[in-house]
Parts: sequence; C-alpha cells; structure tokens
Amino acid sequence: MKLPKLAISALILFFLLINGSTSSSGPTRKKYSRRPCKRLVLYFHDIIYNGNNSKNATSAIVGSPPWGTKTILAGKNHFGNVVVFDDPITLDSNLHSPPVGRAQGFYIYDRKDYFTAWLGFSFWFNSTDHKGTLQFIGADPLNKTRDISVVGGTGDFFMARGIATLMTDAYEGDVYFRLRVDIKLYECW
Amino acid sequence: MKLPKLAISALILFFLLINGSTSSSGPTRKKYSRRPCKRLVLYFHDIIYNGNNSKNATSAIVGSPPWGTKTILAGKNHFGNVVVFDDPITLDSNLHSPPVGRAQGFYIYDRKDYFTAWLGFSFWFNSTDHKGTLQFIGADPLNKTRDISVVGGTGDFFMARGIATLMTDAYEGDVYFRLRVDIKLYECW
Amino acid sequence: MKLPKLAISALILFFLLINGSTSSSGPTRKKYSRRPCKRLVLYFHDIIYNGNNSKNATSAIVGSPPWGTKTILAGKNHFGNVVVFDDPITLDSNLHSPPVGRAQGFYIYDRKDYFTAWLGFSFWFNSTDHKGTLQFIGADPLNKTRDISVVGGTGDFFMARGIATLMTDAYEGDVYFRLRVDIKLYECW
Repeated sequence: MKLPKLAISALILFFLLINGSTSSSGPTRKKYSRRPCKRLVLYFHDIIYNGNNSKNATSAIVGSPPWGTKTILAGKNHFGNVVVFDDPITLDSNLHSPPVGRAQGFYIYDRKDYFTAWLGFSFWFNSTDHKGTLQFIGADPLNKTRDISVVGGTGDFFMARGIATLMTDAYEGDVYFRLRVDIKLYECW
Repeated sequence: MKLPKLAISALILFFLLINGSTSSSGPTRKKYSRRPCKRLVLYFHDIIYNGNNSKNATSAIVGSPPWGTKTILAGKNHFGNVVVFDDPITLDSNLHSPPVGRAQGFYIYDRKDYFTAWLGFSFWFNSTDHKGTLQFIGADPLNKTRDISVVGGTGDFFMARGIATLMTDAYEGDVYFRLRVDIKLYECW
Repeated sequence: MKLPKLAISALILFFLLINGSTSSSGPTRKKYSRRPCKRLVLYFHDIIYNGNNSKNATSAIVGSPPWGTKTILAGKNHFGNVVVFDDPITLDSNLHSPPVGRAQGFYIYDRKDYFTAWLGFSFWFNSTDHKGTLQFIGADPLNKTRDISVVGGTGDFFMARGIATLMTDAYEGDVYFRLRVDIKLYECW
C-alpha cells in the first residue's frame, strides 16, 4: 500500500511540474483559436462628393477611367473609379450617433461586368473604450456579406489580425452608403 | 520485481497523460515552418485599356502624373501611373484556359529612372478546389523574380500569411502581360 | 530506501523526456514578445513634383479631387490628393547620405477638416546590411508621433510583422518632407 501511494505522489508532482513548465515556456503572448479573441460590430457612413454636397461629403472621387469624370461615378459598374474617404464610425446604424472614430482610406471599383471593389483602409479609434488603429485590406465582391482581412493594428489593437465581415446596410443612389463591419480578431497580444 | 513494474506502469501512464495534455494544450492551430504549409502556382493576365480594346481590356489607367494621360502609359518609366485591374487567374499560362478566380486590385509605377511597381491586390477564388481570398501587397522591382507579401486570407485561406514569388511570364508591348505567381503560405490555420 | 530512489530516477527520466519533447515539438521558429526582436531607425525623404523640379522630385501627385490639379496640393487640407513616391532611405537625417534602399508606394490625404493621410508603401533594402523588403500600411493622423503597421516582409525580413512609429522630422512648404521611421518588429522568423 505504501508504494502505490508514492507513485501517485510522483504522478501529482510530475503533473505540477509539467503544467508549470508549460505555462512559463518562453515569451508567447499570442492566443490562437477559431473563436475570436476580440469582437466588435461597428458601422461606417460614406457620403460621396457629387459637386453640390461639399459640406456633408466624406469621400471624393480622385481617380477615374479614361471614360469617366470626378463628380459622377463612371459607367461600366464604376470600373476604374478610385474613391478616398474619411467616414465617421458609429456603434449603431444612425449616421448622427456620436462617432467613436474614423474609417480612413480608399476603395476602387475594379470590374467592368458587375460591381466589385478593392478596399484599403484603417479604423482610427478615439473613444473612451478604444484608442488605436486597425488596418483592413481585401476584395469586396459586394455580395450580401463578404470577408476581408484585418492585417495589423496599433494601440489597444497592438499586432492584431483577423477577419472583418462586411454587409451593406443601406445604399442610397450612388451618394450615401452604410457598411456594417463585424470585426473578429483571432490574433490578440 | 513488483515495484519496478509499478514504476514502469507509472511511466507509461505519465507519458499518455503528457501526450494527451500536449496534443490538447490550448487552442493552437497554426503551424510554423520554413517549409510552406500550402503552395499554389497560378497565372494572371493583364490587358490594359488603350482606347480601342474596351471589350477585351481587364485593366485601366486611372491615375497619371502631371505629364501623362489615361490611354497611354506615361514617359519616365510610367512613373506615377495608377492602374486598376480585374484579371482572370488560370492554372496554366494560356489566357483562354478556364479561370479559377480573379486577381483584383491596383498597381502603381513608382520610379522615374527605371521600372518598378507597387502592388496591392487580392486573389478571389471561386473554383471547385478553392473558395476564398488571399491579400497581397509589396514592392515589385520587376527583376526576373521578386517576392511580395501575402498578408491575409479568408475562406479556405482563413488567416493565411506567406510569400508570393512573381515572374513576368510574357510582356507584349505595354498592352498585355502575364504574371506567374508562386504562392507559398507559411502560416496556415 | 530503494523504492524512493526508483521513483526519483523515474522523475528525472520523465523530466528529460518532457523537456526533450517540448524543445523539439514541431517546427516552431517564431518568437513572441512585447520586446522587439529587431529594431531599425531610418529616414526617408520626399520631394514632391511641383512643375519645376522634375530632376529632383521623388514623388508626384497622380490623383486629385474634383477641385484640384496635379501640380499643386489641393485646398481643404489636400483631401483627395493621391501621391506616388520613390524616396531614398538613409541612416541619418541627411538627404545626401548614401541611401540604403528606397521607400516606394503611395499616400492619400484623406480628411477635409485637418491633415491626415493613409499610407501604403514598402521599404526595399539593398545595402550590405540588409536585402529584402518590409510592407507598411496604416492611417497617419500626422500627430507628433504615430504608429502604423508592418504587415509583411521578404528576404532578410522573411514573414516579419511589427509596428513603425513615424515622426515628421522636417517639413518645408509642401515640397519637401522627411520622415523618421522607428521600426519595431515583434514577429521574426
């Protein structure tokens, strides 16, 4: 009866040692999982300059194809239009809610035969909840929902990576649209 | 004889426990190695709009330097030209092979004294083999081969990162070129 | 006394086995820490084409808002200007120091009511110390210092990620500026 006890003690001791060595093994600070380590749902609002709305506009056409102009999106599904934006980010879908930051960057309409876009932008947070930035890039096939990549972050989002699921929440005649952005971070430091 | 056996049993038991705890230790799903966890070789085909090829063109000049136009690439190694593209991706070098997806994004010619470009684009896969996207950015010095970064992915390429080695496989007088893209992913989830 | 010894031997043996299996467990080569695994401080120099400085200019306006031109930055804090650059990188703040590489890419002025920019560029190193590239993207609020993301690398910077802290080191009347870039890599392979 004495020896099995000893073996059991050893077992317990080893277990403690194994766990100890595992939890302190090196400077790893990242966590990986298919479950997000952080999740945020936000909205941003884009009002395209059309020649008359200088005061309210949050974006402007800065590049256009040979057949286009800069005050109206071009034909052929806007193929070739480059739009620079600085859009307010809100917690709900109301354009007039207090912004928690700005979505800044550009999008390009990149296909002739139907609508698709390519996006490069940052979320710049400046609220009591969050300070810092997240960087996004990706193809936007303008399906009901579509995924782009979160490729980096700073501040509260130091070194973050993840996926953002976009949904066009409202679209009003080539002048206003609202995107719902469901941000799921899978790498958090 | 009885006790050593017990110790051996304990040893075996501990081993099982250790292995068990290792293989289930946390939610790690990434694998790291200098050997790619996934590799794909693909081609994409770019036909620049030149004023006359509206039907076949897959890209258009949308930004040009002060000394340029939008129907012909500018002098000084095209410095300052911004080109938006939506190019078919094929498994071999034949433009007319069935596309497995689209390469969408833009490139910029960014140097006066010789050819170099900067690229931002996505591969959007829609074949029986692959659904999802990969995001690419990087400087392209237009050497024989050159490496750019794969900075993110979605769908079948969830959270992927890696390197893409580009090679200009054909170049026909400022209107058509074909790139061979050797994609090596080193982070796979 | 014999049996405890045996248990101790088993303990030592298990330990060796555990350590062995830990140190060889898979092909992990990344190191994670809040302390950079690599750090570089560099400067780059941007001379914007203004119609008269074709020989010295390292950047050109290639996109402008409806109210702008391409030889002078637009009103409203340059909102909508897209600038393509190919700038020398130096180890100190002297424009005439021997360059260790080129900073290539673009920036966009993206806000009407004050200065902010969005950056996408690469450092392309070609010195005795470093060969390879680093990819940067991020919002630049043009504060005294601001952080953007290092989202990928090639060559000596294979698969790197990190943060770059930018500081405008000199700004001379819309034609010349110099950025100090403090690159801190937190993922090194």
